[in-house]
Amino acid sequence: MVGRGESISDHMYRMSLITMFAPPSLASKINIPHCTKMALVHDMAEALVGDITPVDGVVKDEKNRRESTTMDYFTRSLLGRVNGGLTGQEIQDIWQEYEDSETLESKFVHDVDKVELILQMVEYERSNKDAKLDLGEFSWVAYKIVLPEVKAWAQEILEEREAFWAGKPHSYYKDQTE
Amino acid sequence: MVGRGESISDHMYRMSLITMFAPPSLASKINIPHCTKMALVHDMAEALVGDITPVDGVVKDEKNRRESTTMDYFTRSLLGRVNGGLTGQEIQDIWQEYEDSETLESKFVHDVDKVELILQMVEYERSNKDAKLDLGEFSWVAYKIVLPEVKAWAQEILEEREAFWAGKPHSYYKDQTE
Repeated sequence: MVGRGESISDHMYRMSLITMFAPPSLASKINIPHCTKMALVHDMAEALVGDITPVDGVVKDEKNRRESTTMDYFTRSLLGRVNGGLTGQEIQDIWQEYEDSETLESKFVHDVDKVELILQMVEYERSNKDAKLDLGEFSWVAYKIVLPEVKAWAQEILEEREAFWAGKPHSYYKDQTE
Repeated sequence: MVGRGESISDHMYRMSLITMFAPPSLASKINIPHCTKMALVHDMAEALVGDITPVDGVVKDEKNRRESTTMDYFTRSLLGRVNGGLTGQEIQDIWQEYEDSETLESKFVHDVDKVELILQMVEYERSNKDAKLDLGEFSWVAYKIVLPEVKAWAQEILEEREAFWAGKPHSYYKDQTE
């Protein structure tokens, strides 16, 4: 099994940097500092609830309920006294904006989430001393990317990855778990 | 010896959140998203050069030279092709602004750096199962905090810490290393 390569805060940290790399075509029409902030808080509930993945058998409604309760606890109870509750409210709002995924900013951050996952995959493959384990099955997330600017990033990463594997013998993650 | 409790990116991640907690008296006169960004990049050179501390015997000029060269490599070589070099230049500029420590924003981020160190100390003390190791000697950094708003944070943390230790027998870090 492949261990979790990075912590949830590592993931949010890396995403926050990636938001800063937005090309002018995007940066000119969205609020990048707002996206940076969204990247920094979007998985905060996970850091407390735990990372619930499809294989854990928790239905989506229950996952949402747990994460929402956790964010309430964090932003209202823990941060309730800070700046008259304003700071907590602001964090709650930006987390909710990510969950709703309606604004262009939140769509961008969702895309960045996927690019970061692809980068993790590629870095994990390269850090593997024998460089034999092909995690390419995780690259399907690239198809869920919405914005053309982020699609272009993913494509470039996946092309570099193809060049890395070209001609190398390798096994697949699925082979090892079956 | 006390191990490094958190990675450099953990430290930058935590600082970036703390910048968002600025009270209205500060938030109304400084650019908080700029501070958040500064927190996210201020120790990037360390992440590549390594964390050089006074006991390593590297003179300050040499430390600065190594970090500056590292930032050049990162922002000009690695990021040179990204968005025509603009993204790299922006990161270089904000890193330099932190180093120069002349703007109010950079003074705030320097203060947040110290508060995060104090929080690490307090969390480390509490996470210690036997809760006997007093790291209070690291609280001297509180005296180097400049802005009154951040001084108030440090004071509150250190008062809570006093209450935690009150009446508990404990040894000092120095006793264990001598």
